[in-house]
Amino acid sequence: MYKTAVITLSDRAAAGMYEDKSGMSIPELLGKDFEIVRYKVLPDEYDVLREELIWLCDDMMVDLILTTGGTGCSPRDITPEATVDIAEKNVPGIAEAMRAHSLSITPRAMLSRGVSVIRKRTLIINLPGSPKAVRENLECIIEALPHALELISGGKE
Amino acid sequence: MYKTAVITLSDRAAAGMYEDKSGMSIPELLGKDFEIVRYKVLPDEYDVLREELIWLCDDMMVDLILTTGGTGCSPRDITPEATVDIAEKNVPGIAEAMRAHSLSITPRAMLSRGVSVIRKRTLIINLPGSPKAVRENLECIIEALPHALELISGGKE
Amino acid sequence: MYKTAVITLSDRAAAGMYEDKSGMSIPELLGKDFEIVRYKVLPDEYDVLREELIWLCDDMMVDLILTTGGTGCSPRDITPEATVDIAEKNVPGIAEAMRAHSLSITPRAMLSRGVSVIRKRTLIINLPGSPKAVRENLECIIEALPHALELISGGKE
Repeated sequence: MYKTAVITLSDRAAAGMYEDKSGMSIPELLGKDFEIVRYKVLPDEYDVLREELIWLCDDMMVDLILTTGGTGCSPRDITPEATVDIAEKNVPGIAEAMRAHSLSITPRAMLSRGVSVIRKRTLIINLPGSPKAVRENLECIIEALPHALELISGGKE
Repeated sequence: MYKTAVITLSDRAAAGMYEDKSGMSIPELLGKDFEIVRYKVLPDEYDVLREELIWLCDDMMVDLILTTGGTGCSPRDITPEATVDIAEKNVPGIAEAMRAHSLSITPRAMLSRGVSVIRKRTLIINLPGSPKAVRENLECIIEALPHALELISGGKE
Repeated sequence: MYKTAVITLSDRAAAGMYEDKSGMSIPELLGKDFEIVRYKVLPDEYDVLREELIWLCDDMMVDLILTTGGTGCSPRDITPEATVDIAEKNVPGIAEAMRAHSLSITPRAMLSRGVSVIRKRTLIINLPGSPKAVRENLECIIEALPHALELISGGKE
């Protein structure tokens, strides 16, 4: 079982203005090998996300953090910047693979700025904000995730 | 109408040694929704490009800057470095999409080092230096540009 | 003839625990236009790789450095970080093209974190660690390499 945190970035969902369908769709998409130990809706605030990520990696020591939202091109979208800021290693291929897959569905996929990085023993992946995009992106990487998480934890070579 | 600047980077075009066909081809490729408010040919000088980009973003407040040239692997090619230096956010998917498209035409496309970034309310995209590559690259992103520019300006969510 | 260095990153190969099949496969894959002037097996140590790369670029002035290994997601994998640290320019398209090609073969390719960069007049490319992945990656870029090396050396425009 991989200890997994789901963080939704959305000013409006954090203010209770609408339901967080994207974040809530993730557990079922991940399947039974992933235990959701944390689920949180945050506003699009750089420092708030930064501290949450550090705490999840360094104190909670989760295996995987999936963020959804805040990866677009609006002034309030800061998810990739906050993620890169606390990262130790970049895993560009995960973000590239997701964008290439989504680009085959819609040209707007090129505007998704999500990153995929490692901090300590935790893999962090930025997913887009819509439930449809979350599903398309996760589908394209789910097969590689267990192997990635084994490697990151130092459990396999 | 999107306020657009076109900047050509070329030592030889700046010295009047040849005509800037690449930069001059851009207005027609963009179409009627883009108003060219600035067109400039600059030498491949890091500081010159850097200052031009800052001025276009911060003072002219253009919506879009398209550079052409200086994205290759020659010692004088510094367009991506100057662009990254003044950027606030990275939009990697635009550059990835352009390279993936060009790579289906020629293996040399992998040597194009262009980036796509945001500074304040301005989107900056590095296009390659040849008229043919400019056309191929723009074709592949033009459909996503209006949506990107609306988001960056804060006009849509 | 392009002066080429091959560096294998592997704790176990460096300790003599197994033969470096990946690094040793590279000369034949490159063909007769590439002269191997340096072949070295190093442990996965950030500072050791960093110093080797600087020496090869600044003192040996090789045209091309190919590393193999250390690009994965294990705690000891530091090849991309050491490479980026000494780089002057990024050439993202080479790494993107290799990953996109490998991804058509296996989803695990998205976990390869290799980068491709320039320092002074030297092109540095991180290849994955397995002989199979080395072959697949080199096949996909070999056609563009001579042109890249000519540009980097300042020999062509």
